[in-house]
Amino acid sequence: MILTNATVATMTGGYGLIPEAAIVLEGDRIAWVGPMGDLPASAAPVTDLGGRLVTPGLIDCHTHLVFGGNRAREFEMRLTGASYEEIARAGGGIVSTVSATRAASEDSLLAQALPRLDQMLTEGVTRTEVKSGYGLDIETELRMLRVARRLATLRPVRISTTFLGAHAIPAEYKGRADDYITEQVIPALHRAHAEGLVDAVDGFCEGIAFSPDQIARVFAEARALNLPVKLHAEQLSNLHGAALAARHGALSADHLEYLDAEGAQAMAAAGTVAVILPGAFYALRETQLPPVAALRAAGVDMAVATDCNPGTAPMTSLCLAMNMACTLFRLTPEEALSGATRIAARALGQTEEGRIAPGFRADLAIWQARHPAELAYRIGATPLHARIFGGQLDA
Amino acid sequence: MILTNATVATMTGGYGLIPEAAIVLEGDRIAWVGPMGDLPASAAPVTDLGGRLVTPGLIDCHTHLVFGGNRAREFEMRLTGASYEEIARAGGGIVSTVSATRAASEDSLLAQALPRLDQMLTEGVTRTEVKSGYGLDIETELRMLRVARRLATLRPVRISTTFLGAHAIPAEYKGRADDYITEQVIPALHRAHAEGLVDAVDGFCEGIAFSPDQIARVFAEARALNLPVKLHAEQLSNLHGAALAARHGALSADHLEYLDAEGAQAMAAAGTVAVILPGAFYALRETQLPPVAALRAAGVDMAVATDCNPGTAPMTSLCLAMNMACTLFRLTPEEALSGATRIAARALGQTEEGRIAPGFRADLAIWQARHPAELAYRIGATPLHARIFGGQLDA
Ligand SMILES: [Zn+2]
Ligand SMILES: [Zn+2]
Repeated sequence: MILTNATVATMTGGYGLIPEAAIVLEGDRIAWVGPMGDLPASAAPVTDLGGRLVTPGLIDCHTHLVFGGNRAREFEMRLTGASYEEIARAGGGIVSTVSATRAASEDSLLAQALPRLDQMLTEGVTRTEVKSGYGLDIETELRMLRVARRLATLRPVRISTTFLGAHAIPAEYKGRADDYITEQVIPALHRAHAEGLVDAVDGFCEGIAFSPDQIARVFAEARALNLPVKLHAEQLSNLHGAALAARHGALSADHLEYLDAEGAQAMAAAGTVAVILPGAFYALRETQLPPVAALRAAGVDMAVATDCNPGTAPMTSLCLAMNMACTLFRLTPEEALSGATRIAARALGQTEEGRIAPGFRADLAIWQARHPAELAYRIGATPLHARIFGGQLDA
Repeated sequence: MILTNATVATMTGGYGLIPEAAIVLEGDRIAWVGPMGDLPASAAPVTDLGGRLVTPGLIDCHTHLVFGGNRAREFEMRLTGASYEEIARAGGGIVSTVSATRAASEDSLLAQALPRLDQMLTEGVTRTEVKSGYGLDIETELRMLRVARRLATLRPVRISTTFLGAHAIPAEYKGRADDYITEQVIPALHRAHAEGLVDAVDGFCEGIAFSPDQIARVFAEARALNLPVKLHAEQLSNLHGAALAARHGALSADHLEYLDAEGAQAMAAAGTVAVILPGAFYALRETQLPPVAALRAAGVDMAVATDCNPGTAPMTSLCLAMNMACTLFRLTPEEALSGATRIAARALGQTEEGRIAPGFRADLAIWQARHPAELAYRIGATPLHARIFGGQLDA
């Protein structure tokens, strides 16, 4: 297949914009991209894109897409003036999602996740990460990851699975976080890995979750299994989680509102990506901004993701996350789009996606737009014209 | 048609929730709504909604949906550090939208507006307001309103047209706002009214736009034509525009961040709706919140709208506006949904829409949701199952 008359943002470094461009696809790979005038002779069928913008398929590198129930009633209780205690008594907070997820069958979790995934696809996503972490027991953590894998068999999308047993301390282990890690997290990780369900291992390093020492225990286990790690770090306070992650060669450290310059330096030295999550910042009405200038100065690459989750970011629009990254955190539209393509691929350890270049996967988004800045400019959904996944045009 | 096994939010006052409900539609009207057990005997065909939530079709009561071009490059320039002057020199600001709109044919404006309208429909909108105001000359203002009317012939949606000649002072009238009103606004209003293009008349009362005295001139002309009025008021400062609008029996006063208690009292006395526009607040990173508590205390009804426009709110998602109204302005989800249904209808002078009750129009939204709080809870698009417009199920 040959796409002609396209405005191509190759994202090979900045926009890498080629006006009046053509792209040659062979099988599931990009064979050639360049100005239409330089197009090599070929007998392949040609699709004229009428000047439309083509970008790499978008990549959402941080989501909690699979979960049971929702937290709409809790959202409503908070806005009608219920206290934290009243919400907790009504079963609110992450506890309610853990209960609903444990109670849901694999098919039910799948059915609940699919509409969210479908919304992502309508905005040109071709790969999304999916974390476990609402089971907090061995069986439910495994079930969540099985659902994540099944999603990729039901829709034209690639899924990166992340084991997040160390997401929260379940009620039955209150005050015994180390026992929880020993008795549930580590056995669940081994079983999930044996089933081929784990692409990476994540944790939540925070006063209300796990200490750096506890996270280090999980990371040691991950590295023994040769699995890459990543970390929810410095979201609500600075426990130096990003530096810990960097010491373990982490793919990414995520959130980072309270990151300091030392943490940014450590990430730069390790090549750890900073995953910026403005949706949670927005929903929690936080005021502490992530240190974007320090990340730029240190040379840390920034990715942008939805953080799709039922508590702090019930959103599926990666374009909206890009807009929020610009509006709230002052990223440039070029940084935001890089963060949802090339850099997001890096954050997931993917070396053949996120750019339009020969040899890369033919995963593309074709937009009702003329310039890549339009994707972050709109507040939310930007009209997608079509998606190409593995060299095939979506029906 | 009979809809059964529905969770109905009638919106007849608060949610007006009826679990396990049925709705009987006859022609383009709602004939009956109530608990399934009370359903009158009938031979009409039955559709089982499987417990899904049904609300009135959403109503977006403040949009600038029709315009030429976009302002993505200006958005990008600002974020890459360009000064106000540099952006102005590059043709940025409302001037650029006026130029693009003047240069666009009727068909081109229509083609540009349709994808935006289509996005609204995917979120259950059954009526949207559309303003003129990017022509700022007689011919272009008329063209914008003709496009607005044509939208309703091409899609299953009702359109309320609003003449907004007094939106900005065009460059050629700089320093001569009164001449602009005399020579362009009033003649354009008369011609548009004669063509049947005007449902209401609006203005922008602000230091950077028109003074209260100038707005009063436009309102006097509107009332002479027996057209209802509304006003962009108190967005950036307090010129007492809301009280002016109330004195003219306005349908609504919109934005209102700088409204004072006196203005709220005047609105309450006149029955003028407060249209809350959190998208522009978000995009401009404003910090002055509209006086929601004072509006509640005075008994002013609040509507919520997208303000869809290329400069300060390039968004089409009314669900996102509802979420922003809750997250940023602390409306309750019930207030937000009322503001996008029953109160939005009032803001457009519509007495037969925005509620599910006998005699009201059969314009409905059926959601992949169980509780109405879910619509404002999600950050952006909430999955729509189907839309019913004029008693007909959308294909
Ligand atoms: Zn997360
Ligand atoms: Zn407006």
